[in-house]
Parts: sequence; structure tokens; C-alpha cells
Amino acid sequence: MSFKPLPTASQRVPAIARPHVSERAMKTLDIVEKFVDEECIPADAVFAQQLGTTISERFSAHPAIIEDLKAKAKKLGLFNMFLPRNHFKEGAGFSNLEYGLMAELLGKSATASEATNCAAPDTGNMEVFAKYGTEAQKRKWLDPLLNGDIRSAFLMTEPDIASSDATNIQLRMKKEGNDWILNGSKWWSSGAGDPRCSVYITMGKSDPTNPDPYKQQSVIIVPADTPGVTVHRMLSVFGFDDAPHGHAQISFNNVRVPDSNMVLGPGRGFEIIQGRLGPGRIHHAMRSVGGAEKALELFVARVNDNNKKPFGKMLKEHGTMVERIAKSRIEIDAARLIVCDAAIKIDESDAKGAKKEIAIAKIMVPEALLNVLDRTIQAYGAAGVSQDTPLAKMYANGRTMRIVDGPDEVHMMQLGKSEIRKGPAVMAKLAKAKAKSAELLKAHGLAKRDPLAMSKL
Amino acid sequence: MSFKPLPTASQRVPAIARPHVSERAMKTLDIVEKFVDEECIPADAVFAQQLGTTISERFSAHPAIIEDLKAKAKKLGLFNMFLPRNHFKEGAGFSNLEYGLMAELLGKSATASEATNCAAPDTGNMEVFAKYGTEAQKRKWLDPLLNGDIRSAFLMTEPDIASSDATNIQLRMKKEGNDWILNGSKWWSSGAGDPRCSVYITMGKSDPTNPDPYKQQSVIIVPADTPGVTVHRMLSVFGFDDAPHGHAQISFNNVRVPDSNMVLGPGRGFEIIQGRLGPGRIHHAMRSVGGAEKALELFVARVNDNNKKPFGKMLKEHGTMVERIAKSRIEIDAARLIVCDAAIKIDESDAKGAKKEIAIAKIMVPEALLNVLDRTIQAYGAAGVSQDTPLAKMYANGRTMRIVDGPDEVHMMQLGKSEIRKGPAVMAKLAKAKAKSAELLKAHGLAKRDPLAMSKL
Amino acid sequence: MSFKPLPTASQRVPAIARPHVSERAMKTLDIVEKFVDEECIPADAVFAQQLGTTISERFSAHPAIIEDLKAKAKKLGLFNMFLPRNHFKEGAGFSNLEYGLMAELLGKSATASEATNCAAPDTGNMEVFAKYGTEAQKRKWLDPLLNGDIRSAFLMTEPDIASSDATNIQLRMKKEGNDWILNGSKWWSSGAGDPRCSVYITMGKSDPTNPDPYKQQSVIIVPADTPGVTVHRMLSVFGFDDAPHGHAQISFNNVRVPDSNMVLGPGRGFEIIQGRLGPGRIHHAMRSVGGAEKALELFVARVNDNNKKPFGKMLKEHGTMVERIAKSRIEIDAARLIVCDAAIKIDESDAKGAKKEIAIAKIMVPEALLNVLDRTIQAYGAAGVSQDTPLAKMYANGRTMRIVDGPDEVHMMQLGKSEIRKGPAVMAKLAKAKAKSAELLKAHGLAKRDPLAMSKL
Amino acid sequence: MSFKPLPTASQRVPAIARPHVSERAMKTLDIVEKFVDEECIPADAVFAQQLGTTISERFSAHPAIIEDLKAKAKKLGLFNMFLPRNHFKEGAGFSNLEYGLMAELLGKSATASEATNCAAPDTGNMEVFAKYGTEAQKRKWLDPLLNGDIRSAFLMTEPDIASSDATNIQLRMKKEGNDWILNGSKWWSSGAGDPRCSVYITMGKSDPTNPDPYKQQSVIIVPADTPGVTVHRMLSVFGFDDAPHGHAQISFNNVRVPDSNMVLGPGRGFEIIQGRLGPGRIHHAMRSVGGAEKALELFVARVNDNNKKPFGKMLKEHGTMVERIAKSRIEIDAARLIVCDAAIKIDESDAKGAKKEIAIAKIMVPEALLNVLDRTIQAYGAAGVSQDTPLAKMYANGRTMRIVDGPDEVHMMQLGKSEIRKGPAVMAKLAKAKAKSAELLKAHGLAKRDPLAMSKL
Repeated sequence: MSFKPLPTASQRVPAIARPHVSERAMKTLDIVEKFVDEECIPADAVFAQQLGTTISERFSAHPAIIEDLKAKAKKLGLFNMFLPRNHFKEGAGFSNLEYGLMAELLGKSATASEATNCAAPDTGNMEVFAKYGTEAQKRKWLDPLLNGDIRSAFLMTEPDIASSDATNIQLRMKKEGNDWILNGSKWWSSGAGDPRCSVYITMGKSDPTNPDPYKQQSVIIVPADTPGVTVHRMLSVFGFDDAPHGHAQISFNNVRVPDSNMVLGPGRGFEIIQGRLGPGRIHHAMRSVGGAEKALELFVARVNDNNKKPFGKMLKEHGTMVERIAKSRIEIDAARLIVCDAAIKIDESDAKGAKKEIAIAKIMVPEALLNVLDRTIQAYGAAGVSQDTPLAKMYANGRTMRIVDGPDEVHMMQLGKSEIRKGPAVMAKLAKAKAKSAELLKAHGLAKRDPLAMSKL
Repeated sequence: MSFKPLPTASQRVPAIARPHVSERAMKTLDIVEKFVDEECIPADAVFAQQLGTTISERFSAHPAIIEDLKAKAKKLGLFNMFLPRNHFKEGAGFSNLEYGLMAELLGKSATASEATNCAAPDTGNMEVFAKYGTEAQKRKWLDPLLNGDIRSAFLMTEPDIASSDATNIQLRMKKEGNDWILNGSKWWSSGAGDPRCSVYITMGKSDPTNPDPYKQQSVIIVPADTPGVTVHRMLSVFGFDDAPHGHAQISFNNVRVPDSNMVLGPGRGFEIIQGRLGPGRIHHAMRSVGGAEKALELFVARVNDNNKKPFGKMLKEHGTMVERIAKSRIEIDAARLIVCDAAIKIDESDAKGAKKEIAIAKIMVPEALLNVLDRTIQAYGAAGVSQDTPLAKMYANGRTMRIVDGPDEVHMMQLGKSEIRKGPAVMAKLAKAKAKSAELLKAHGLAKRDPLAMSKL
Repeated sequence: MSFKPLPTASQRVPAIARPHVSERAMKTLDIVEKFVDEECIPADAVFAQQLGTTISERFSAHPAIIEDLKAKAKKLGLFNMFLPRNHFKEGAGFSNLEYGLMAELLGKSATASEATNCAAPDTGNMEVFAKYGTEAQKRKWLDPLLNGDIRSAFLMTEPDIASSDATNIQLRMKKEGNDWILNGSKWWSSGAGDPRCSVYITMGKSDPTNPDPYKQQSVIIVPADTPGVTVHRMLSVFGFDDAPHGHAQISFNNVRVPDSNMVLGPGRGFEIIQGRLGPGRIHHAMRSVGGAEKALELFVARVNDNNKKPFGKMLKEHGTMVERIAKSRIEIDAARLIVCDAAIKIDESDAKGAKKEIAIAKIMVPEALLNVLDRTIQAYGAAGVSQDTPLAKMYANGRTMRIVDGPDEVHMMQLGKSEIRKGPAVMAKLAKAKAKSAELLKAHGLAKRDPLAMSKL
Repeated sequence: MSFKPLPTASQRVPAIARPHVSERAMKTLDIVEKFVDEECIPADAVFAQQLGTTISERFSAHPAIIEDLKAKAKKLGLFNMFLPRNHFKEGAGFSNLEYGLMAELLGKSATASEATNCAAPDTGNMEVFAKYGTEAQKRKWLDPLLNGDIRSAFLMTEPDIASSDATNIQLRMKKEGNDWILNGSKWWSSGAGDPRCSVYITMGKSDPTNPDPYKQQSVIIVPADTPGVTVHRMLSVFGFDDAPHGHAQISFNNVRVPDSNMVLGPGRGFEIIQGRLGPGRIHHAMRSVGGAEKALELFVARVNDNNKKPFGKMLKEHGTMVERIAKSRIEIDAARLIVCDAAIKIDESDAKGAKKEIAIAKIMVPEALLNVLDRTIQAYGAAGVSQDTPLAKMYANGRTMRIVDGPDEVHMMQLGKSEIRKGPAVMAKLAKAKAKSAELLKAHGLAKRDPLAMSKL
């Protein structure tokens, strides 16, 4: 069967984004796509099989196929693309936007992000080391992370509080001589299930009585094998264990780390997480756009399946299916532009300067992803919720995106409030226009007569 | 009260769109904004008062304030910005994107589009003359239109058929010697209510038996005062009459026009409307984005109103209001990017090349606008549906956007089908990945074991 | 063409509601339906024509057809069905549920409610007189109202405050000897446009310093022709004036009424409006269900229209239309049951006892109505927003239902809070189950092992 | 802490449903609630622990706690309540409505349905035996099923076709002498994972060339241990295996069963599934209503949790949470009424007579359930998707409700079409009203003047 070939990744870059993408990035995009399509996606099933079945197997596994892929990626120059050239010298020299477009492609495979050393939470952690770390910290942790030799976790969320508001974080850090003593509990420590996870970047309260709640928290480096650290269990996401990565619940019982492990200085935790979370949210968002595209491909394939003919018509001949595919295309394309714009805004200033754009992307993209997945699941019927398609796992993962890195509600609240703060300026503008209007009416000898005035009755 | 000034129009251009906007356009944007804010919006009330109250007054009125504004606009160089420099030499030399950003600003005032000679349907009609007209047609109709001396209408929709599918159009055009004789009915002929409306660009069926339904239709120029033309009534939109513009129902009874009035040639009607509707949809869409911004400003003003304190708290302290403002900001920003991308796509190719992008903008923008308006109306309570705010009229107008120039359903269907046509290529890609995966599993000595296989039971 | 006749009103009573409907009411339902279908709906156009065109005509008109219909209704025994037999002796002897089912039918015509003397706001006002009025008040106002000789308005909402919270109401009532002096402004005084509107039941603040904000307000009777009362203008709803009924803005300038006009006693305003608004909300809701049924009929007619064949298929062959019709049926049927249940709850206790059910009906029904109307409008295309269908006016009217008698937000807040107050009891229940579960596990010698526990790693 | 006790199950029966519920059922409702709350819900955790961890353990387990609960239920008279007294003599003597109200309570526990022998798919299968079975079939299968000694499955859905349209079912049944030989594949055979599942009621094609596609299918009884039957694997639902119940993929390879196993007769498969699915859909729906109530309880508990204070306020003080709780209450109460009405309709006629009502319940309830769950998950944050709350599993299960027993789309289509079939009658009614209206206008000497007529211009 002959058919029009699909446009390549570089050809699909939205017209509006093109001037922001270098020739080198355009070429790299097509190399990434080829790598993902021809190496990573086929390897996903091998990865799943190499994981094992029992919980203890699954969380001590290191599927060999991942190292094969990493070697290939390095050879192709596809390693550490996430570190943006404007802010770091250690990466592959792309902008946040350029990497974002690549991340979309990585988001179509379960193995591609790790294969290219662009997997969360290592990416954000490497940014922390590169941006805020001392030389010693960089040598000890950043170098092996950049080389893909170890993995890392970021320990922020806690089980007993409302972590959506990070000022609530309770893990206690106490100074004792040159050491900090840590006590408390963390959960949803993603990546801590991986046997290669060697270091935890950990947030806690070092100065609980500081009148400024944004100066009470610090971020400190804790090697995973420090005495007093216990990984109790993994959290499941819908029924999935996300092995070997995992989402761990971890307790700290008199965990002692030297002061030299402190990042940036005590009380500067908020500064660090704000810098860290911005680009990370973009990465997640662009992988999610890729996930949505993958779902839409599966949707399109399903409606073209000759074996699926309810009521004598192929699914593509049912108008409701056509409309849902259209809605999916609209939501995906809008989501992509929103993320691209946010990435450019970070490139041009930084995460703080792109606060509004990042919040919008953070809220909008998972909603689009989940909508597309939900429609695709429905088109697949029962197969859509089972192990026979990747859809249910994608849905489970996508659903967490509305919660992690700040739930929708927090981003909505901040976004809404920032809009509301324009109030006085907006009101002044409206008042000025009204005054000018009154003047004009007078100048034209017109009263402001209401169309439904009763005076003449 | 002191407060941070609002960013100007040029400062608000989305980061992703900036490289596409020339320095001249950036400066013009701020001039347009000043003109709209300081001249047009205050003039809107004068325009409304000058219209009169009875139907016959309202549809014979030409509010004098419009001519004042036009003179000012001409002086500022703000005339005919809609004609894109890539495709026409007659306009102000901006791209579709650049004009789009201006159209957003024009969309905040009832008078601004006409004041700058950028009002529909004249814009689309001028494009038709400029693109497809003979020199004689241009001199007779394009010149006075470009100068704002006359107005025009585009007669396509008919009352007795499903006009959402233009092949259904029935107005009969019969050749008699060197003339065409027209018989039939049109409605929703927008702009035909204006006493200055001098010309109707009219679509009809000149070749009803042509086997290709896309070659049966022609477009011909009909002067408004041609004998046999009767304007019967105006259509209302919700309760509004949209005077003096209006939406007319018109009958053609043996209306005779010379063959020299035919545009492009008999049977080429579809070609013309396809070229015409693309940019027009972008104009509508960008004005709608402006309308949504205006609504959001009114929303922000309302929640900051000290007199409105239900249950002891200002509206801005009610979390549900904050969330709705955030949702509105998200929808508006996404809609703007979608339209900008479509405009750039037209700039880089043409309306046909931007088919997908235009369809997305056409569907998405009115939905965003109506959502924002609905939330704002709710925040204003009963005032929101009354003559005391512009919201109800904006809603009525916005609601028609889901119908005119092709209803949502038609654009959805075309968009969905174009996605579905990728089916064979997508299926081939998926099959290739599956085959490669099977190969890899075999190479690694792995069977594809189902996680819930019962074989060992 | 032969076809299955449509089921009659009595046949359509939902199975679940039947035991609550007397034989007499079942018969009356079919009489009401016949009256509405054969007399009122055809009279609607006459009513519209008899109204006139200028504002002054429209708000001094009393279309003669209304009196014809009233005479017919009286003859058929279809008068004052709204006054529930459990609470009043003056009505036609039906329950709130039974009248509710009739109100659904009345909701399909613009004239039927007034024709049967069941039109708001007279209904609620008659309830106030019947329930709280003195004998003198009843004779003076209730008798002519019950006979359809005069009309009335209820003046509560004010322009300068957040009326969604009635404690904000500011109209000042001051005692001077045996009189009350009223000063202030009202708007959205529905029905006050009708030249026959003779009496305003008016809410105001008689005791502004009372520490209990729910005891500051009183309700007093103000004859429409009292000196100091000025009707300034009507408010429009989307573009509609709702003549002759109208929504008035009225000012009170030292309006003097005798103390004998006070209803129930000073400070008892809240008691009165709570009793008044409950059944009124049910009436509105059931008329809205009728409106939604009418819209769905129009939708069904449209998709069966042979002249409307976009893309070669009748609208009923387009799957998206079929789905929208199904969704409309679902929303309507659910809305009806919700209102019926609330009506029964009022019948069995009173408006206070049915607070939850009324709130649910108040929120849910307009949403259903607007959804059905929006879909129907879309099926009608441009005709749907014009004067050629009743849809746009129905939409405008339905849209106000989300605002009047308390906006959605207030009902949501109250409903949510009442649910939240169950918190302690729910938490105790959950804790008890958890404790019992722990006991059981222990009794069975089982530890609560987490499925993803890491202890064995 | 003292607080108002929660109303009991009988007190919560909606006012509108009360006359349909016998005194005995009212009493039983409270007994069921007590049993579910005090026995079943605490036992759910024991059940989970007794299941084991490996796949082979989980699908050969029979948790002992279930037998304890069954013994208790029998003692309380809570066994087989699902068999409606109007149609069967074998059950506990309740109506579909009465059982529906009980099923809501059962839906709050993972063990309650099986404990009371009211678990799907046994319920539907018992109905098939009771309604259509021969005496021999009843003795052999119905008796042990009614006694809770064995379990059963219903094999309809197939992997390779669009099972949403049951005419597509392919499993081949060939007559050979007195036997039928079965060949084909089934999946989503729910319950077939349970080691006690002894019998499969199996649908297949016995007469593939019958011109009436609704007569090609038969239903036959297949003992689970018949040679040629192979259970290959279980399907997962999101990540859950639903052990020990399970959803099996099963192949039939020359499976031979005697003709005496045929139910009702060859070619009568559609008759059987139509009778079977009606009440089953009501059971699912009412359990889902119970699930939604459970979720809302968890939501209410969460917002009352003193430890969860984002931004200094308890969740119940955040307006957005209050609104979502209100929306959940609305959706649940509406869903319950819809199902109750459908159950009564079945009681009064049968599943066929309640087709419309069942379809509405089938579509509406899962949507309500998923909405409530989604909001509750969001309130719980990451805990909501994990094993620490039942929410994710409930969501996964609820999501399948939109697919099993006919996907939403099929029910929508049938519901929409049945509404559309009223077209001719509706059009005749509208035409009649229009004619009467024209007559009336004429009689009153009025022309139908359009409000926006231009004739006088």
C-alpha cells in the first residue's frame, strides 16, 4: 500500500516556533526521532521483560537494554540535551525550546529519556548541581550524573502535611558542629527505587522560627547509603509500580551529613526549588505532548482498523470518532504552542521571568493529555484499559501530572492572583475611558439615553 | 493610588511570536492601542447614541463619529492594515500576523475596525477585488472601498438549505447574451443594512449540471441598487439588531448584471471563497481574542470592586473567582498562540497551506471567548446580561462565531478527516516498530511474557 | 404519513413519580397540555404582534389575547394551580409536585403561565399574601391577584451592592409615627413594566444596627402608584426587553406607606423570602424543564428536515447530532426527576425542609436547559440565534436562571457547606471501620503488609 | 466531639422513591447498611491480605473471610436480594428498586456483593438460569449458584472484533449429532479467574448465514472444565488484576457440549442477553452510586483534615473545594434518581420496557462516579492515586463501566435514534400549532410583521 509519508520532526515544528530553532537543532530533531522510533520504542518491550515480576526483582533490576541504548545515544550525540546553553556550559548546547521539541519525541517511549540521560528527576538535580553546587559537589555528583553512571532523587513531598504548599515541609535539619542531623519522612521520592540511585537532594526545615516562612527551608545533599536512611516501600500509581524507578517512602532517623553538603547555604531552599522546577515542568509538559501525540496515533490507527466495524461501519466512518480526533488535534497543538512559548520565555529570561507561562503550561498540558487518552481508551474499548495497549499506564502517569510539582489548584491560584493584581491599573484605564466617553457625548450634544428609558411613558 | 502600569501592546506580544514582528509593526501596535483606548472605546457610546431608536432610523443612520475616527486613523497611518504585504501591494504593508495582533486590539471597540477600514465583510471583499478582480472592477469597487467611501456585503448563505455545505447554494445564475440573470434568496448578508453598502459580492449556481459540484458555483458583482434586488428584513442576533451594519435577508428577482461583473470566471466560486475565508477567519479570531481580553479586564475589575462583597468578602477573595480568572487567562493565551501560528502559516504560504491551522483557530477561539464571557457575566450577576455591560452583546456576537464562515461541526469534520488520512502511514510505522521489537526480544532470548499469564497456574 | 402518536403528558409522568400524582392531577395534566398546545402556543405569535414596536408602546400594552386565554383557562378550571393544597386553601388543590408537572407544560409557551394565573412573580407574591398576610392585606391584594385582575412585583435586588447576599440589601425603611418612610433603589424588579402591575412587595433594611444581620430586613407592601416611586427604565436581557413584563429599575424617594402594610412584622424579611423562594424556584425549574423539552422537539424536527442535508446526509444521519440528542434527553430526564423530588420534599415538609433538594434543582436545571438550547441552536445554524426560532430568547431567559433567586455560586456554597458539616460524623465512621479492620487483621493473624513493601529487598 | 448522627440508609431513600419501597425493604436497608459498615468494609483489608502476592497465588486464592461473611449474611437474611420478586420466585422477595437501594450500599465494599451472593456476573447468570433454563439446567447450576457454592462467568466479548456490536461475535458453534462443537476466543470473561468459577454461559454464532443477524447467535452452557477450554491470561484494568475474580482471555478448541446445554434454543442469544443485561446494568449503576457516595465521604473527610492546611487554611475553607463537593452531591443525587426510576420501570414492565431509562442510567452513572472520584483524588493529592486510598482502584473500575455491557457510544446512539424517531409526530405537532397560529393572527386582523422588517424604510 502506498501512502504519503508522515512529515518528520523538523518539518512538524510549528511555523511560529521556527525562528527560535537553530539549524543544528532542526537536524538533531530528526536524529532524535529516528533514534526514538527505531531504537527506543522497539526496546520498550525488552525493558519491560528484563524487569522481572516480583517486587524485589523489579526494584533491584537494571535492564541491560538501557545501557545498550545509552551507548547508542552517546554515539549519536544525543546525551544531556536538556541543559540549556544560555544557562549552562555542561550540556549539549540547545535552548530550552530546542530541547523541549526533542523532549516531545522522547515522551513517546518508556526508555528514551533515560537512554539520552534526559530523565527526571536527574535532569532537575543536575541543574541544581550545575547552577548552585560547589566545585566539590559538582565533581562528586554532577560528573557521574552527566555521564549516566548514577541516578538521583529529589526529596521534597512529605506524607503527613499538605505538601502542595512547600512552606509546610517538616523534615527537621539541625546543625551539630559541622554536621546537619536530619529527622523526618518523605514520600513520592521518585527514582529512589532504582538500585543505581545514589544521592538524594533533600529539602527540610533548618530554621523553623525564621519569621519569613520562605527562609526556613534548606536543600542538602544526602548520599543514599547514609546510615539512618530507610526506604520503606514504593507507592503505586493506579495499579502501576513504575519499577525500577519507583516512588519511594523514606524515613530519616538521625541522618548525619556534613555542612559541605548544604546547597547554596542554609535557608535558601525556596530559591533552589523555584529555579529547579521551572524547566522541569517544561520537560514534563513536552513529554506529555509527545504522549498525547502517541495516543492520537493509536487513535488514528484504531479507527482505520478494518476488523473493528461496529454497526457495519469502520470507526472512522462514525462522526463522533471523527469529531473526537479533531478535538484531540486541537488540544495537542494548542498545548504544544503554550509549552514552546514558555520555553522561549525561560530561554530569554529565566524560570522566574516565565512564571505565568510555566503555570499555564503546567495546568493545560496534562488536561489535554488526559482528554486525548480518555478518548483513545474509549475507541479501544476494553483493550484500552488493559496491558494490551500502553494507554492505561499513560493515563495513570498523566493523571499524576495534575498533582506533582504543585497541583493544578496551586498554579490556578497563583495565576489568578497575578491577573487580579492588575485590578487597580485596569480600573483606572476603564475609568479614564468612561470619563473620555462622557466628555465626547457632551461635546456632541448627546445625553446618554438608555435604550429602555421609561421617562417618556 | 499608585500601581504598576499595564504592559503595552508591543510588550505583550508573546515571546514565541516576536521574531515574526517587524520593528515598524511593534511601533504601530502601540499606536493602534492608544488609538483604540483613547479614541475608539470612548466613541463607542457616541456611536450608539447617534444610531437612533426606531428600526428605520437605525438602518438608515451613518453615525458622524465614525467619520471623525476615520479621519484620525488615516492621519495616524492606521488604514487598511489588513491587506497582507506578502500577497497585496495596496495595504499598509503588514503581514497577516502583524495585522492579527492589531486586530486583537481593534476587537475591544465597536467602532475601531470600521475606523481603520479593517471591518468585515469589507476586508474580505477588498481581498477578493485585489486578488481576483479585473482592473475595471478594481477601479470601480476596490478604490472607494480602500478609501472608506462605500461599504460592501458578501452574499453566500441562503435560508432554505444547509449552507454549512456551500455546494448546496441554490441562487440561480443564467447567462443571457452578455448578461447574467440572478434569481434566488440570500440571508445573513452582513453589512447589507448599512445605507452606504453599495455592492454585493454574490455567490450562486451558474452551472448546476457540472459533474464536479465544486465547479457549479460562480461569484459575481451586484451593485446594491440593481433592479430586482429587495432587502426584506434584518436578522437579529439574540435580541440585537447590529445596526446599522445588520444581517439582511435579500431576494433576487430577475436581477441582471453584465458578464464583466463575473469574478475570475464562471465556475470558479469555490476557488474564490476558499481564498477569501482564510484570512477573514483569522481576523475574526483575533478580534475575538481581543474581546476575550476585554471581558477578562471587566472580570478583573469586578472582583476588585469594593462595593461587591457577598458574604463579607470581596469577590477576589472567593477562590472560585480566582480559579475562573486563571482558566480564562489560560484559554485566552492558548487561543492567541493558535491564531498567531495560523497567521504566520498563511504568511509563509497561503490560506490553503494553512488549512489545518485556520480550522483549529476557527473552532478554538470562539469557545475560549464564550467561556470567558460566560464566567464574566456570572461575576457581574444580572448586570452582566443587561445593557449596563457590553457582555451580553459580546456573547451574542461570539456565539455566532461558532456558526458563521462554517459551523464548528464542518471544521471538526474536515480536521478530523485530514488526521484520519494519516492512518495508513501511522499503521505502517506502528507495524515496523512492533516487528523491530519482536526481533529485539528474540535477539535477547526473551519471550513476550504477559504479566498476567496463567500458564504456570 | 402515519406515525406513532406521541405519549400524552400523563403518560409521560416518570414511573418513580406516579404514586405521588392523584388521578385528578393526571387528568388535569392532559387538559393543561391540550390547552397549552392548542390555545397558548398558537397565541404566542398574536401576543407578540399585539405588543407593538416602540418602547413606550411595548410597556403600556396589554395584549388582548391574554384575556381571551384567561377566560378559557378559568372555564377549564386551569387557574391558580400553583398554590399547593397542603399549605394553602385558596388554590386549585394540587400538590407542588402536581403543579410542577403542569408548570413543565406551561413552560413551553410564552403566554400559558399568565393565562393560567401561574406567572411569576405573582405566584410567589400570592404565596406571601396567603401565608403571611393579614386579612386586610389579603382582601386588598390577594383577591384581585388570585382573580388575575392586577399584577405585582417583588422588589429585592439592588444595583449598588452584591445582592447575591441578601444581608447586603440597603433600601432604608424608617418608622415615622404610624408610617414607614422608604428611600433607596431597586432593579431587576421583574413584572414592574406591566401597566397592570399595582403592587410592589418590597424588601428593605428597617433595623440596620441589629446585631443579627438576618433580623435587619423587613418586607412591606408598596402600592405602585405611591408618591416618590419612580420607574426609571427597564433592563434588557441579552437584547430582549421582555415587554410588557419587563425588569425595572425603580427609585424610592421618601415613599410613605402605613405600618399596616408591613408583612408579618418588622425584622422578619428573611423569614418571608426563605418561605417565598423555595416553591418559586421549583416553578422556574419545571418551566425550564418544559423549555428544554421544547428545544429538544425543535432539535428533533430539525434533524428530520429533508431540506437540510449538509454533505449529502440528513442531519439525523450525522452521528454527532444523534449523540447530542441523546445527551439532551439524559440531561432533561435527570433534571425533571431532581425537580420532582424537590417538589415532593416541599409537599412533605416545607421549603426549609427541602433546602438541599431545592438548591440542587436550582443549580442543575438551568445548566441542562442551556446545554440543550446551545446544541439546538447549533443544529439550526444562524436561524438559531435569530428571530426565526424562539431559541435565542429562550437562551437569554435561561441564562438569567443561573443568576436570579441566588446565583449558582451561592447555592453551591450552601450545598457544599452542608455536606462538609457531615465531616465529624463521617470521620468517626471511617475511624470506626479502620479500628474494626485492624482488629480483624489481628484476629486472623495478618499484618497489614503493603503490596510494595521493600523490607525483603 | 459530639455531632449530629448521619441519617440511616432508610432515612436517605429519596422522597420521590419512598412509595415504591415496602416496609420490609426499609428495614432491610438498615440491616444491609449495618452489615456493610460493620462487617464488610472492615473485612476488605483482610480479603486483600488473604489474596497473596504472586499472580499464581492471587488467582488460586479463595480468601477465607468471604465464607465468614457469607455465613453472617445468610443468617441476617441478606442473600440473593437481587432476584426481583415480580419476575422470580427464587430470590429474597425484593423489587429491582428495593434491591437497587441495597446495591448502593453493597457498592461501598469490595466484599459485600459476594458476601450477599449479589455479585456480578453470577447475578445475571442466575437470572438467565431462572428465567430461561430447563429444570435440569436449574438444578445443576442455579441451585449451587443461589447457595453461593460455585461461581460463574458470562462469555460474550471477543478480542478480534468490535464487540460493542454483538452481531459481530464470531465464536463458532457447530451442531454434530447431539452435541455442539465450539471454536473461538473470548476475553474480558470476568470472574473466570476465580478457582470456584465452574460454569461459563457462552455466546456464539450457531447460524452464521441466517439473514436476520439477530438470530445468528446462541447461548450455551459450558462447564469450566470441559476439554478444549484454555484460560490463557487475565486482563489488567489500569494496573489492577482484580484477583481472584479476574478478567480472562479464554480459547475454545473443539469444545464439545451436549445440546441439552443450549439455553432457550438455538438462535435465541439476543433475546437472552437483552433480558440479562437490563437489570445487571441497574445493579452496576447502583453499586457505582454507592461508590460515588463513598468517594464523597472520603472527600468530606479530607477537607476536614486538620493536618492538611495549604496556604494557612483547611481545605474546607477553600471555595473551590466547597464547590466541587456541591457538584459531586448534585451529580450523585441525580444519578441515583435516574437509576431508581429505571429500576421501577423494570419492576413495572421488564428490561425491554425500560430500555430508555436503562440506557440513560448506563451512560450517566459512570460519568458521575468518575467525576466525583477525579475531584476526590485531586483533594487527596498523590495519596489519591496510590495504594493508600481506594480511589485509584475505584477509578479504574469505574472507567470500565463506560465500556462494559455496551460502551457509552452505543447507548447514546440507540437513545438518540429512539428520540429521533419521534420526528414525524413532532413535526406534525409543530405544523399544527403553526397553522393554528396563522388562523389566529388572521382572525385578529394581524399580519405577521417581522420586528426587523425593512419594508417601511
